[in-house]
Amino acid sequence: MSNTSKIWGGRFSDNVNEFVQSFTASIGFDKRLAPADIEGSKQHSRMLVNIGVLTKAEGEAILLGLDQVLEEITVGTFHWSEELEDVHMNIESRLIELVGDTGRKLHTGRSRNDQVATDVRLWLSREIDEILRLIYQCQQSIVELAEPHTATIMPGFTHLQSAQPITFAHHLLAWFEMLERDRSRLLDCQERVKVSPLGSAALAGTSFDIDREFTRAQLGFTEVSRNSLDAVSDRDFAIEFLSSASLIMVHLSRWSEELVYWSSSPVRMVELPDAYCTGSSIMPQKKNPDIPELVRGKAGRVIGNLTSLLVLMKGQPLAYNRDNQEDKEPLFDTVDTVSDCLRAFAGMIPEIRPNVERMLDLASEGHPTATDLADWLVRKDVPFRDSHRISGQLVALAESKGCNLADLALSEMREISGVFDESVYEVLELENSVKSRSHVGGTAPETVATEIARIQKLLLNRYSDLREAT
Amino acid sequence: MSNTSKIWGGRFSDNVNEFVQSFTASIGFDKRLAPADIEGSKQHSRMLVNIGVLTKAEGEAILLGLDQVLEEITVGTFHWSEELEDVHMNIESRLIELVGDTGRKLHTGRSRNDQVATDVRLWLSREIDEILRLIYQCQQSIVELAEPHTATIMPGFTHLQSAQPITFAHHLLAWFEMLERDRSRLLDCQERVKVSPLGSAALAGTSFDIDREFTRAQLGFTEVSRNSLDAVSDRDFAIEFLSSASLIMVHLSRWSEELVYWSSSPVRMVELPDAYCTGSSIMPQKKNPDIPELVRGKAGRVIGNLTSLLVLMKGQPLAYNRDNQEDKEPLFDTVDTVSDCLRAFAGMIPEIRPNVERMLDLASEGHPTATDLADWLVRKDVPFRDSHRISGQLVALAESKGCNLADLALSEMREISGVFDESVYEVLELENSVKSRSHVGGTAPETVATEIARIQKLLLNRYSDLREAT
Amino acid sequence: MSNTSKIWGGRFSDNVNEFVQSFTASIGFDKRLAPADIEGSKQHSRMLVNIGVLTKAEGEAILLGLDQVLEEITVGTFHWSEELEDVHMNIESRLIELVGDTGRKLHTGRSRNDQVATDVRLWLSREIDEILRLIYQCQQSIVELAEPHTATIMPGFTHLQSAQPITFAHHLLAWFEMLERDRSRLLDCQERVKVSPLGSAALAGTSFDIDREFTRAQLGFTEVSRNSLDAVSDRDFAIEFLSSASLIMVHLSRWSEELVYWSSSPVRMVELPDAYCTGSSIMPQKKNPDIPELVRGKAGRVIGNLTSLLVLMKGQPLAYNRDNQEDKEPLFDTVDTVSDCLRAFAGMIPEIRPNVERMLDLASEGHPTATDLADWLVRKDVPFRDSHRISGQLVALAESKGCNLADLALSEMREISGVFDESVYEVLELENSVKSRSHVGGTAPETVATEIARIQKLLLNRYSDLREAT
Amino acid sequence: MSNTSKIWGGRFSDNVNEFVQSFTASIGFDKRLAPADIEGSKQHSRMLVNIGVLTKAEGEAILLGLDQVLEEITVGTFHWSEELEDVHMNIESRLIELVGDTGRKLHTGRSRNDQVATDVRLWLSREIDEILRLIYQCQQSIVELAEPHTATIMPGFTHLQSAQPITFAHHLLAWFEMLERDRSRLLDCQERVKVSPLGSAALAGTSFDIDREFTRAQLGFTEVSRNSLDAVSDRDFAIEFLSSASLIMVHLSRWSEELVYWSSSPVRMVELPDAYCTGSSIMPQKKNPDIPELVRGKAGRVIGNLTSLLVLMKGQPLAYNRDNQEDKEPLFDTVDTVSDCLRAFAGMIPEIRPNVERMLDLASEGHPTATDLADWLVRKDVPFRDSHRISGQLVALAESKGCNLADLALSEMREISGVFDESVYEVLELENSVKSRSHVGGTAPETVATEIARIQKLLLNRYSDLREAT
Repeated sequence: MSNTSKIWGGRFSDNVNEFVQSFTASIGFDKRLAPADIEGSKQHSRMLVNIGVLTKAEGEAILLGLDQVLEEITVGTFHWSEELEDVHMNIESRLIELVGDTGRKLHTGRSRNDQVATDVRLWLSREIDEILRLIYQCQQSIVELAEPHTATIMPGFTHLQSAQPITFAHHLLAWFEMLERDRSRLLDCQERVKVSPLGSAALAGTSFDIDREFTRAQLGFTEVSRNSLDAVSDRDFAIEFLSSASLIMVHLSRWSEELVYWSSSPVRMVELPDAYCTGSSIMPQKKNPDIPELVRGKAGRVIGNLTSLLVLMKGQPLAYNRDNQEDKEPLFDTVDTVSDCLRAFAGMIPEIRPNVERMLDLASEGHPTATDLADWLVRKDVPFRDSHRISGQLVALAESKGCNLADLALSEMREISGVFDESVYEVLELENSVKSRSHVGGTAPETVATEIARIQKLLLNRYSDLREAT
Repeated sequence: MSNTSKIWGGRFSDNVNEFVQSFTASIGFDKRLAPADIEGSKQHSRMLVNIGVLTKAEGEAILLGLDQVLEEITVGTFHWSEELEDVHMNIESRLIELVGDTGRKLHTGRSRNDQVATDVRLWLSREIDEILRLIYQCQQSIVELAEPHTATIMPGFTHLQSAQPITFAHHLLAWFEMLERDRSRLLDCQERVKVSPLGSAALAGTSFDIDREFTRAQLGFTEVSRNSLDAVSDRDFAIEFLSSASLIMVHLSRWSEELVYWSSSPVRMVELPDAYCTGSSIMPQKKNPDIPELVRGKAGRVIGNLTSLLVLMKGQPLAYNRDNQEDKEPLFDTVDTVSDCLRAFAGMIPEIRPNVERMLDLASEGHPTATDLADWLVRKDVPFRDSHRISGQLVALAESKGCNLADLALSEMREISGVFDESVYEVLELENSVKSRSHVGGTAPETVATEIARIQKLLLNRYSDLREAT
Repeated sequence: MSNTSKIWGGRFSDNVNEFVQSFTASIGFDKRLAPADIEGSKQHSRMLVNIGVLTKAEGEAILLGLDQVLEEITVGTFHWSEELEDVHMNIESRLIELVGDTGRKLHTGRSRNDQVATDVRLWLSREIDEILRLIYQCQQSIVELAEPHTATIMPGFTHLQSAQPITFAHHLLAWFEMLERDRSRLLDCQERVKVSPLGSAALAGTSFDIDREFTRAQLGFTEVSRNSLDAVSDRDFAIEFLSSASLIMVHLSRWSEELVYWSSSPVRMVELPDAYCTGSSIMPQKKNPDIPELVRGKAGRVIGNLTSLLVLMKGQPLAYNRDNQEDKEPLFDTVDTVSDCLRAFAGMIPEIRPNVERMLDLASEGHPTATDLADWLVRKDVPFRDSHRISGQLVALAESKGCNLADLALSEMREISGVFDESVYEVLELENSVKSRSHVGGTAPETVATEIARIQKLLLNRYSDLREAT
Repeated sequence: MSNTSKIWGGRFSDNVNEFVQSFTASIGFDKRLAPADIEGSKQHSRMLVNIGVLTKAEGEAILLGLDQVLEEITVGTFHWSEELEDVHMNIESRLIELVGDTGRKLHTGRSRNDQVATDVRLWLSREIDEILRLIYQCQQSIVELAEPHTATIMPGFTHLQSAQPITFAHHLLAWFEMLERDRSRLLDCQERVKVSPLGSAALAGTSFDIDREFTRAQLGFTEVSRNSLDAVSDRDFAIEFLSSASLIMVHLSRWSEELVYWSSSPVRMVELPDAYCTGSSIMPQKKNPDIPELVRGKAGRVIGNLTSLLVLMKGQPLAYNRDNQEDKEPLFDTVDTVSDCLRAFAGMIPEIRPNVERMLDLASEGHPTATDLADWLVRKDVPFRDSHRISGQLVALAESKGCNLADLALSEMREISGVFDESVYEVLELENSVKSRSHVGGTAPETVATEIARIQKLLLNRYSDLREAT
């Protein structure tokens, strides 16, 4: 056996420590938490001074030391070591080098279990702020593209079949609404992220008389966790974020479906900006919608990350288990993916060029005002289900003659139903069709313009808030 | 070819309509929406009367007709027909049978697209109310089980290794906190469920001068949707609910992991109630933790449902596509699964019997107060990282002698560090260890008792609200 | 507390047994396994006779009894009882009613753990046979649709941009290849399904001197499992089937994407058969591609089922745990879904009508022979990367003049490269472009016709096999 | 608007090309394919020489150039450029630098679409070889650990309740069987990986008279793809690999569940090797099963990767779309994860130390031979269902007396059933219980020893094959 295993096994059997060390080390990805880790440690050490565990002098030494560590990391001179496993040990170890034995006192009253939970929450809350800013930008972009097109008629699709005429701005505002919900979900999620686990120590709390309220307030959290076991075991906040992120990606993927379709060669309703497309290595004439396609693909990635984390947590008893180390990569990857995709869309959307004539042409095909015709009949007291049937007969007649509904003679119409009179031709116009849908949420140009004005005011107010927060 | 296909193909090629009809029909599952559908139709018809599309008499006929349909469904005499495809057409068709042509006017100003969205939101909002009640019950059960055990010491595990002594009630309150977050998420989700899409019609709104605010208020929704395309395409609310439900199931699965482990034959820390266990068909002595295992298994089911719905929505352009018919079964199944699992746990938890002596025995093994020892040294001004090392050396000494830390002589301790004095023995007691963790979130009996009192007050207030709402 | 819980809790606290019984019962879904369960029991009892545990008379009584049970189930007179939990106990209980005490001997030397594994494997293997037949039918349908269209030119898309002309039959054969891989995967999977776990009993095997080889052979399995713990714990075969099924659904979903797109109003390359489409409740002119959309939606369902089962199994220690009861519903649902979707496509495909003129028109747009132009240059010794650039310049020139490549004068071409001569016009023809791709796998009409002939022969051979197997 | 967007938007609006370039570039991850890409290009250029598209001299220049590129990559001097997007363009561009205009001819008759499919298949097939070797090693490790323990009795669990005594080696061989299926699945999968798409070009094939059979054979593929559209669109092979990999991870996760449980402080049936465990930052006495926990966590990661890829492919029409760029990272990550986890287990398993006394003690608890008692009664002609009941009564009696079944007096037994005689005590011994399960797959020491011998022979044969293949 030993001979056998040497051939391929040598790699690790001779170097078991090296392989295991590298297999279990998290420093390759968790160093990203360094700024949050240092901030957490700074507030923790301040608290230790307050409750008399550290002297003022010790506290100051640690603060200075931690500032220097952060500086080294920022400028890139910090030496990350895999032997020291993770971001926490790397930083603490360097601190001790810098400030000596005092550094060894920093870990009093806490454990890596509550420390890492604090770090991730702190980091994620700020990343959510950034994503909220990117959503704001995307929403701005949508409104910018929509504003000149409140009266631009395009075919409204259901089942990718032309159904009823709508306005281009109206369609774009559907995208706005999706992001509006994403924003609302992220804000709710963020409230549950901003809970301070610091002080939960390994799982049971600590025997020191710590001041959890102080560190909570200093770190900008809104609550302290109320149970130490739960606090070190809980990754709900990460899963909830991944769920919200999955929905953002589902939305971007749906827009991408539309952009790919709208710009497809037989459809040509919009032209995507060159900077967001690429050519082909073999077909010189191609202009491919790369960004929408890539974003669509990345939706799968984020859904996969959500699945990973649900599976990860589902089988764990309390309290902390090493499985949890695997929570970071899907979370980091999702933050990066969502941010980049929003960034790409925020830049691309205002440069999309609608092909207004083509939109109108396509909107005219297929008797899209048949519903308006049915509604007209209802107003003449024909029950809806009957008017629907009559309208269908006229469509069949127009189809058989190869003409539009408006091209049918009144006499032809009256053969099918005596109710018809001249006024019916009015509702067969695309413009009148969209104009008539003027209730809240409807596609009428004026309604959409009012909606845009409302949104612009809303965004302006948010902008002030965001600027203050920066 | 035709000969070939006859052998197995006959089933559908001769009966293409039948097969396609049955393949596309949703009545098998969506009839569950009937009460919501009828309520939506009633308010819609009231609105049509208000705006003059229906006469008062027509409106009253429709209301009476719909009430009778509901009655027939409730008592079971309603005839569901697959030919009529879905719940909406089944109900409307019966209405027309009952009230004649007037029934044909009901569908004026709406479409199945906004109708089904209204139905599902109405139905789901009420199911969330029920789930919130079940969460309340589970939380009650947890507190009931915890209350007598604020001073019952058990081993606190990390990595399923005994780590530090904790109290049983403290552990149970970790479960309470999980549900507390689930509740908070469901309440946030419910706000986004309670948005009225009614009036969005097929995708563009309607040409009738509808009063969306009226139907919204009557149906108990908090907002009207602001974009008709979005309103008929959006299933975010269902996905968000499935995400929240997945987290509930992850929590129940984690408790199940613990219950299965705690009641496992070599561990025996708790005994599960007989009514929630079964025997074996071959091994007469077995008592299997069936409920926790089944619940654990059902977590996979709900996560799978979430995956389904994300996949379903991810690829759809706006507005409505037939794919969406597939949104209902995962949603219905999830509501049933989560409700039943919560119901099972609410019933089982108060009957769990902790084996108090066994818990204490297990808590005593493995030098669980080594951390307290390290903390004691810190208080004597030994830096934490050094005290941690010294504590480790004493553990090694005790291990080599086959005794507990408290059995080491003071002289033996002093050989390792001169700092030790008699007072160290105090922190080696399990009771003192748990007592010392008395900050918010800590495991100290008094802290946990205070927490329980706080929670009982909280639940009492909620109970009043729930009772009023009933 | 007791008062509190009565309000909503009454439902189960008063009827704990009823609720738990219903919550844990599997008879609602596992009765589907009845024929397999009975066949397994018959062979098991024959084996017990062979090894002398049952007398011949006892064996015969049991066989007759089981036949009667099956008959009762088939004609629908069997009374299923939830109290008896599952299909196994329902059948055994009825057997005992029918044949008396002898029936109590049937369960000798086995356990429900190996029994249910046997049942599911037996059932699944036969369902795979049926799915293979449906794949065969779908493949037949594809070839039938493709055969007359080996020379029908359509635009070949990448990124939904027209890229190069291809033939319609060639595109359809891509679908054939996908199913060919699905078939191959199912056959491999089936080999791993056909392993007999019978005799593994609860987890350790049995103390009776059973003849596992006999039951294996009788039940048509190809191997006996080699480890009893593994045999009762293993659900790999179900997961592998769900993976294969997910790929089938991914394929059908991709075809659906294409059909929805091809039949979309601005594209109109194909017309779907009426019987597989539906209209709208409000827009009389609509013809919606319901079947492809529904199938596309059902892909999410099967992927969700796969996720469920992976999650289910991932956290279980050996051997059997009650979690496993949850393996059946996703498996059953997947078999039904995949079968129905294949059935729907097998019926729909031969009735799809390509719009040949529209295809040709679309294929002509966008300079699709630019690659052929580049290839022509390569043959004139221009390095590919340069010829690609020159070709791009000609495309730009044609674009600026609003004409096709073939409309450019030779002199204009020669201004860009002196290499051009009259013969270049030949490669700019769509017909010549497709003709030139005549290697294996290429789109040339003759190549595709040859491929179709090969496939027809292949299917004919399989047909004989399938007919014999029936 | 422009003012607004400047604040956070500047990052990309000023540098749109830079951001888009970086967002769409794949070179960060696909450079891993470089060796496969170069090998593919070498065989492609050889083929181009064969068919006269390249001269011999050109072909040789390209081969030498590609060798030098590979050398530069291997030693680390190659300069990867994000501007050149991907591995293909980076290599081709460097080739042109090295060999001049001849390099520009390499891309004749192919496209990046078939090129990348070829690269990934070539790369994956070799990685599967490596994973098969690691599975072999793990299997060796299992047998090595099992061999001395064919007669070591441990409790066999169902529902984590002690059910029947089994032997430790028997339990370990269940793990062997899981890997045996994984191996079989990977071999089947590899057959479908080894299909050559080269020559499919962008989607339609090429107008050059290529020799696909030549490149196939040279690259070690077993078949050429039969449809060019399918060949560039197909990622089944990657999904099938991810499915197989998910099952490997499910298996390793299940073993991990067992190892964590077995080594848990109240259970202590095995001791894990120090090198595969770590301590705690705060609890000096802890020894945590880090490797099993981490591997268990990584199962979620691979399941997430599978989900990603299914979602990615599910919505794509043919042929190539940019979404597909997202196929690589989940695939690469899965190969690395599975390989590392197998490597970790292969190293850890042989060093696991079973605590033989503890195993026996635990196996004795809970009347584990009750089933043997029931079987004994059956042999005395008591129908199984009755013997099962009698056995249960004896268990209840023993429980009430606080003794084992074997401690009951014969008279006490005979009070319950007159069938009992002295010989019953034999079957109550653990040793006799395991010994009696001697059929194929049973837990009897001799059976298990025979099975181990069979496996050792099997592995020896495979070893020879693997050594030759190296």
